[in-house]
Amino acid sequence: MTDTRADRLAQNFAGQMDAVVVMNAGEPFLDTMFWYLTGATSGTFEGARAVVTADGELHTFVSILEEETARSASGIVHVYNTDAERKEQMKEVLSGCGRVGVNFSSTAYGSVEWMKPILREGAEIVDASKVMSETIAVKDDREIALIEKACAISSSVANSLPDMLEEGVTEMDIASEMHVRMLRLGATGLAFDTIAAFGAHSSEPHYSPADTVLKKGDTALFDFGAKYKGYCSDLTRTIFFGEPEPILKRAYEVVRQAQLAGIAEMRDGADASAPDLAARKVIEESEFKGRFIHSFGHGIGMNIHEPIYVSPKSQQKLRAGNVVSAEPGVYIPGIGGIRIEDTVLITENGCRVLTDYDHGFTVV
Amino acid sequence: MTDTRADRLAQNFAGQMDAVVVMNAGEPFLDTMFWYLTGATSGTFEGARAVVTADGELHTFVSILEEETARSASGIVHVYNTDAERKEQMKEVLSGCGRVGVNFSSTAYGSVEWMKPILREGAEIVDASKVMSETIAVKDDREIALIEKACAISSSVANSLPDMLEEGVTEMDIASEMHVRMLRLGATGLAFDTIAAFGAHSSEPHYSPADTVLKKGDTALFDFGAKYKGYCSDLTRTIFFGEPEPILKRAYEVVRQAQLAGIAEMRDGADASAPDLAARKVIEESEFKGRFIHSFGHGIGMNIHEPIYVSPKSQQKLRAGNVVSAEPGVYIPGIGGIRIEDTVLITENGCRVLTDYDHGFTVV
Repeated sequence: MTDTRADRLAQNFAGQMDAVVVMNAGEPFLDTMFWYLTGATSGTFEGARAVVTADGELHTFVSILEEETARSASGIVHVYNTDAERKEQMKEVLSGCGRVGVNFSSTAYGSVEWMKPILREGAEIVDASKVMSETIAVKDDREIALIEKACAISSSVANSLPDMLEEGVTEMDIASEMHVRMLRLGATGLAFDTIAAFGAHSSEPHYSPADTVLKKGDTALFDFGAKYKGYCSDLTRTIFFGEPEPILKRAYEVVRQAQLAGIAEMRDGADASAPDLAARKVIEESEFKGRFIHSFGHGIGMNIHEPIYVSPKSQQKLRAGNVVSAEPGVYIPGIGGIRIEDTVLITENGCRVLTDYDHGFTVV
Repeated sequence: MTDTRADRLAQNFAGQMDAVVVMNAGEPFLDTMFWYLTGATSGTFEGARAVVTADGELHTFVSILEEETARSASGIVHVYNTDAERKEQMKEVLSGCGRVGVNFSSTAYGSVEWMKPILREGAEIVDASKVMSETIAVKDDREIALIEKACAISSSVANSLPDMLEEGVTEMDIASEMHVRMLRLGATGLAFDTIAAFGAHSSEPHYSPADTVLKKGDTALFDFGAKYKGYCSDLTRTIFFGEPEPILKRAYEVVRQAQLAGIAEMRDGADASAPDLAARKVIEESEFKGRFIHSFGHGIGMNIHEPIYVSPKSQQKLRAGNVVSAEPGVYIPGIGGIRIEDTVLITENGCRVLTDYDHGFTVV
């Protein structure tokens, strides 16, 4: 399984590069690509490196602290005690390589500077972010099963949200309780810090929960996801505590229609811009013109934001095996925001919505 | 408070640089320095930048999605809609700067490449990691209070560990239950993924919990920490489920003596190597010679590993206000490992151990 991943990466960079290098700095500057390639399900691997050569061979370079963990995963394991040893080992593996790929978006500047002196004279460092993104964008069956589990956990918690709302609870209270419930359902962590926003705070798309107290008439927006064995889910449910202002009810209906219009455009081979444009059209033609201030979706996998851009200007195509979010929203500053989000798997003939919770307009 | 942080950073880089730049890539490549400088307590701030100029002025550059959050924090806020705008805004702020500092360890290679074209002709990019580390290494009272709270939560869970152990539970079960208990006590998250290791697995310092079932005679090692409002704690407790092999009991006593010997060397102005050397001496003079295979400690703050190296070769000095771990260990492959860890605040005349749990040899 994991050899296949290194092979697939090598096939994808064939002709463009002689090797691809993954370098971890210190926590949190760790590249999930290291875990993807090795299939390791544990370990911190600060300072570790992985190299995939053109023939699909995977080498890992790990501190003696993580030797046991590394040996239980894929790859030819090189164990170092000192930085000089790490350099020497990598130098040997990379000695024949004239074009070395590095993901410029997920590698520390210092790590690339560290590598330069060990490359052969005249070697070139090139950005491998695109080839890496393309490799991880198509999920295999094992990955899809893990994402499905993460989605099932999140969906269950989404369905239990109405029961958690009562006068006087704070955003932090609910976020913490949601976290506990996800763990109880088997989550191995959170995909990202939960957004729980009451009232006007829901109009800030990236708001973090605070001590805001829930009161009658509030919008209550929850954007969250479980992580399961390294894989993320992403879901947003917006509900209402007491009858909201009529404008919010109208916004809810428009956002839901926009989401359905977007999801209807999702299929293998479709332009990644298509779902966004379809959803945006619904909102732009409504009274909420101009209030959908972000993209329709993004890729989801070991990272909560993977570079599939379901946005108006995207030049990408959707492919079967991609997992993306579908999350239109309408934000009315000072009043509230509505967002409805699902995690969606692209298939040959359409798509499959992996999250499953009550999408109806809900007043508690 | 937060203006003072930018001021302090500017004082620390005075004469070496004209400005320091913090650049976030995508999650998880986000630099906690952005939150440290702005005092923001929320927000994702993917793609955001912060600049501190020589006069201690803080500028932030944020997407329109996070404008509201940024405006509630410190700094002169520049809001961009497009990358071109972000570039233009930063170019203007950096126009007079000939030496621009960047933390090479926590900035993506691509972000630095992105910045190069906007710097003035002949401008130099220099590594600001040292000056940044020195700035954050000395915690202010507000930071210490948050770390104390994180330590109190972890300590309480450490004391409840013996009650959680019973025949048949798995490492994952306990790690999940610990997580829940930390949240119930007010943690806002985990400082890092909990290590829960039974039996021989405890001899892998960076082991991750799995389906291993607890059985009589097992060592049970737990290395974990709560996060509280952005700040971390770090604690390891090793206990025994049923009477362990005598060698493990002897190892426990040696590790505890080593820890106390190390902590006794912690004070303002001490060599950061001193606690490690004192602890290592205890272990090297015991039957466990050669089995303490990592450093005595590291800095702790918004990140779980901050660059204070309490290791044999460290050239640093400890300073009042530093927060470091004290975590000697002895690892016997195939049998088990013992580690005892506290989070310690360095003070003028010594130190204060912030974690507080039962350190005695404990058999459940």
